[in-house]
Amino acid sequence: MPNTVKDVLDTLMEPVNHVQNTVDTLKAGDPATEVKGIATAFMATQKVIEQTIALGANLLITHEGIYFSHHDPAEFLEKDPVYEEKRRIIMGSGLAIYRFHDYWHRYKPDGIMAGLIQALDWQPHIVENQPTATILSIPPMTLAEIFGHIKGRLGIRYLRFAGDLSMKCTRIGLLAGYRGGGSLCIPLYEQENLDLIIYGEGPEWETPEYVRDANNQGKQRNLIVLGHAESEEPGMSYLAQSLQTMFPSIPTYFIPVEQALQVL
Amino acid sequence: MPNTVKDVLDTLMEPVNHVQNTVDTLKAGDPATEVKGIATAFMATQKVIEQTIALGANLLITHEGIYFSHHDPAEFLEKDPVYEEKRRIIMGSGLAIYRFHDYWHRYKPDGIMAGLIQALDWQPHIVENQPTATILSIPPMTLAEIFGHIKGRLGIRYLRFAGDLSMKCTRIGLLAGYRGGGSLCIPLYEQENLDLIIYGEGPEWETPEYVRDANNQGKQRNLIVLGHAESEEPGMSYLAQSLQTMFPSIPTYFIPVEQALQVL
Repeated sequence: MPNTVKDVLDTLMEPVNHVQNTVDTLKAGDPATEVKGIATAFMATQKVIEQTIALGANLLITHEGIYFSHHDPAEFLEKDPVYEEKRRIIMGSGLAIYRFHDYWHRYKPDGIMAGLIQALDWQPHIVENQPTATILSIPPMTLAEIFGHIKGRLGIRYLRFAGDLSMKCTRIGLLAGYRGGGSLCIPLYEQENLDLIIYGEGPEWETPEYVRDANNQGKQRNLIVLGHAESEEPGMSYLAQSLQTMFPSIPTYFIPVEQALQVL
Repeated sequence: MPNTVKDVLDTLMEPVNHVQNTVDTLKAGDPATEVKGIATAFMATQKVIEQTIALGANLLITHEGIYFSHHDPAEFLEKDPVYEEKRRIIMGSGLAIYRFHDYWHRYKPDGIMAGLIQALDWQPHIVENQPTATILSIPPMTLAEIFGHIKGRLGIRYLRFAGDLSMKCTRIGLLAGYRGGGSLCIPLYEQENLDLIIYGEGPEWETPEYVRDANNQGKQRNLIVLGHAESEEPGMSYLAQSLQTMFPSIPTYFIPVEQALQVL
């Protein structure tokens, strides 16, 4: 029996209690459309949309919104030529685009975190899945060795960090997405006796400045900043695997994106 | 006649109308203390505090708060050993620490922006000082040449960017601090016909993703992300110059900090 866009969305939301005021809505397309193929990606960039169409998929599931804002479309985009061209291409394609953000984070464990930990091959080292962080205890590795591991496993070209490259780390707190703020990260170092926090994105004058001061006091704390997309994209690859199991007859693809910012 | 901490603060706030609910308060020390020397810095890091004391200054003026949060001290820091040691050192030193954030941004022109533009030697190229951005029109330079200029002038080791290194840029929008959000930056490209936006910090899935899509559509837009501290620190150096003019008898120092995050 053919599956509609609505069937796929209902199946994805089924394991989680109804979320009020969710950003997880069908941003484009018709829920009654028969799904020919599904693509997942961190974000529906222009290039991802073109790749999805080229693959013959007609349902694109992304973690962030289409138009550069958590709540989209934002008013400031009205008459913006980049927005208008992107919107025209989407409307003309008939592509259905669904944002799967709040629900995926509410899976138990959080689908984004599960994907990131699977990509890092650190499942055997999970100590505890907390609501916003996962605590890991890995065999001792220096910070420099952990860099090599992360870059290789996630295909990341650069990482930002604070700390001591030669320090051996065992206890790690891992936080995907925009969970790098001081109120979430700083208490974790002490409560969980962490050597290292790895987060996606966070305000630069909070956790990084705490780590700088801690090290200046001789209290060793390390920090790796993965980047927002870099930390959440593996969770969308993991989603593609899960969809392939749920809907074995529908071709399913994961489309990676390059790091949005390069370093020079 | 000796100047007290209160005298210096009153003089600094004098050019601006009273700001309600400001974060610009005396975070440590006594307003009646006679000022022996003033140091300015982006942030009162542990090392900056030690350097201030070593210089014989007893008033430290910073742009951000002491304790890793816009509103400090945050409750989550209670019993944190890094916070406690830093607090103990500050209290024991008698150092006065004043945060000069809201008022400095409300100077006309914004003191932080004026310092950044002076450091970049781009004063002759100002087209317009808007409330949150300055529009510049520079002689044509490639994005790669602009990198060299910024790194050399600001002493920055790395920059993050999106765009085309070989593209010649003339029209630039400059935004210091956390003003890189899509609602501020995205409309500027079109309204001001910009080739390039340079900002301090902003959400990674907003302006950088807009620039990625624009370039994918063949609409050339470039972006340089300086870093939060990197973009605001020159404004605190400029403040030290201004203070030296206001209080010629008080020794005044600017204390730079290293980039909080390194890249590997």
